[in-house]
Amino acid sequence: MKIEQFKLYEDDPNVTLTAYILDDSPEMTKGKKRPAFLVCPGGAYMFTSDREAEPVAIRFAAMGYHAFVLRYSVYSNSGVRFPMPGKSPAYEKGVFPGPMREIGMAMLKIREHAEEWKVDMDRIILNGGSAGANNCAEYAVHYSDPVIYEYLNAKPEDLRPAAAVLAYGVYDYALMHKTLQKLGDKDRIELNRGFNLAFFGDPDPSEETMAEGSPVNYIKADTPPMFLWTTREDSTVPMNQTLSMALAMEEAGIPCETHIFENGDHGLSLADQSCAEAKEQINPDVAEWINLAETWLKKRFSLDMPDKCPDWRAELGI
Amino acid sequence: MKIEQFKLYEDDPNVTLTAYILDDSPEMTKGKKRPAFLVCPGGAYMFTSDREAEPVAIRFAAMGYHAFVLRYSVYSNSGVRFPMPGKSPAYEKGVFPGPMREIGMAMLKIREHAEEWKVDMDRIILNGGSAGANNCAEYAVHYSDPVIYEYLNAKPEDLRPAAAVLAYGVYDYALMHKTLQKLGDKDRIELNRGFNLAFFGDPDPSEETMAEGSPVNYIKADTPPMFLWTTREDSTVPMNQTLSMALAMEEAGIPCETHIFENGDHGLSLADQSCAEAKEQINPDVAEWINLAETWLKKRFSLDMPDKCPDWRAELGI
Repeated sequence: MKIEQFKLYEDDPNVTLTAYILDDSPEMTKGKKRPAFLVCPGGAYMFTSDREAEPVAIRFAAMGYHAFVLRYSVYSNSGVRFPMPGKSPAYEKGVFPGPMREIGMAMLKIREHAEEWKVDMDRIILNGGSAGANNCAEYAVHYSDPVIYEYLNAKPEDLRPAAAVLAYGVYDYALMHKTLQKLGDKDRIELNRGFNLAFFGDPDPSEETMAEGSPVNYIKADTPPMFLWTTREDSTVPMNQTLSMALAMEEAGIPCETHIFENGDHGLSLADQSCAEAKEQINPDVAEWINLAETWLKKRFSLDMPDKCPDWRAELGI
Repeated sequence: MKIEQFKLYEDDPNVTLTAYILDDSPEMTKGKKRPAFLVCPGGAYMFTSDREAEPVAIRFAAMGYHAFVLRYSVYSNSGVRFPMPGKSPAYEKGVFPGPMREIGMAMLKIREHAEEWKVDMDRIILNGGSAGANNCAEYAVHYSDPVIYEYLNAKPEDLRPAAAVLAYGVYDYALMHKTLQKLGDKDRIELNRGFNLAFFGDPDPSEETMAEGSPVNYIKADTPPMFLWTTREDSTVPMNQTLSMALAMEEAGIPCETHIFENGDHGLSLADQSCAEAKEQINPDVAEWINLAETWLKKRFSLDMPDKCPDWRAELGI
């Protein structure tokens, strides 16, 4: 494996793409290209969590795929750790559509190196949890809209992801607003105003702004297939977000596999020790999602290989 | 993750230790040391197979453990690819006890960097398949014998592995000889003479030499616990090798978990696409071994972490 890190902007050390490139081998890939994962860690657009970065990239690499981790623009890059409505200003670079455009920048950076790294650009899979899932979903529904491809001066076909594997994301801001109002928990509503300040640049976005920022409203024929999962007990992002996205995908006729585990709170990542801060984040039931995802992925993105091995005795001349 | 490669001998580019060191994170390990795997790829002491090297190391890294791959001395390092009894000479550096001493050299190299890499030296797990399994088993039963610790001028307690996870290995050369004679397949017997030339430096080792080279005969109280697996259909190393080792471990009172899958040929490694040259090497039944091993490992080598996460609101002062 080779690991390389790139800055997406010369003058911003916080926005980086880290490449985990598996070795080619005369015993296996023999020069053939591999699919790759582009991992966008979550963190409420306030930070990008280590718990959803390297451990997840390594787990995908263990499946035989190259992996990349994108640290996109988030609120804390402004120097203020937590957005406080009325007290701290917006951070424009981290506001929609900025972060999703950075996924496009990462796609173009990977394409630059695709021959050297042996990456199959037709099989790039997006991955993210929470805000990372939102960012991937935004990109997946907008990569072929001018807001991304014109801004990046690129062709939509050079920006297309082949699939997205998304965890406990926000996909429908109007529904989020409605659900939080119904629950009536003032702390959650205030926390969500902080999130809105980070993502929309405004703690109280208009209905129109929320609609424009919601992936559920932009799914179209060229949106890639998705694998979505969450937990019913998620106390940060209600599980109806995932149901709303799955429903919108189904209405658009795009394949979408959905798993909603009964137990487990928000942000479990792989739900095992590789990414846990404490034992309460280890949940063997929920940890099954990566195996379900692996099965789903291998239906679409198996490594190319022959049915039979060559005759090694003939190769050695014995 | 950080990747570094070291030569064990200044003048030999073939004998290397590659380190796969997971990042520390203020969200997870917070400076705590991790257990590590030392992976010895198989290849009949003739080569070290890529199929049992990086993909396996990455899979262990995905569990949250650091990983190392040791390319120990093998016959092809002599410049001759395949040992031909009567036609090609022995390669002394690849002959027992040379390769197992190199595991000790690797242990000392890891110990040199243990603080920098945050490796828990009390929890180093050996891993190997086929000849790699043999080499790990040799080391596991001999690390506290003068043949290793005196030769390396080290203390046995600085060389102790905490466990070994071994696949389709040879552990009992007398039984191997007897089984091949009984099967009467001349091709297999001749291939095995080539193996003997590589490992013993002699295509026709004496009974005494075979006994001295067999881990089953040296298990003692300080031999670490083992996890062994193989397949009943292995056409290269008969499965009775694994049974013989499991029996000897049990007689010595050392914990040993053993799995013998009914189907599957020799050398499947992880038995999935990450390490396959062809589809015939993919076997979902056999691929379960890594999950069984992960469960076994976590009983002994879980990462240290508290039960509960800290209160992030208190940390942020909100």
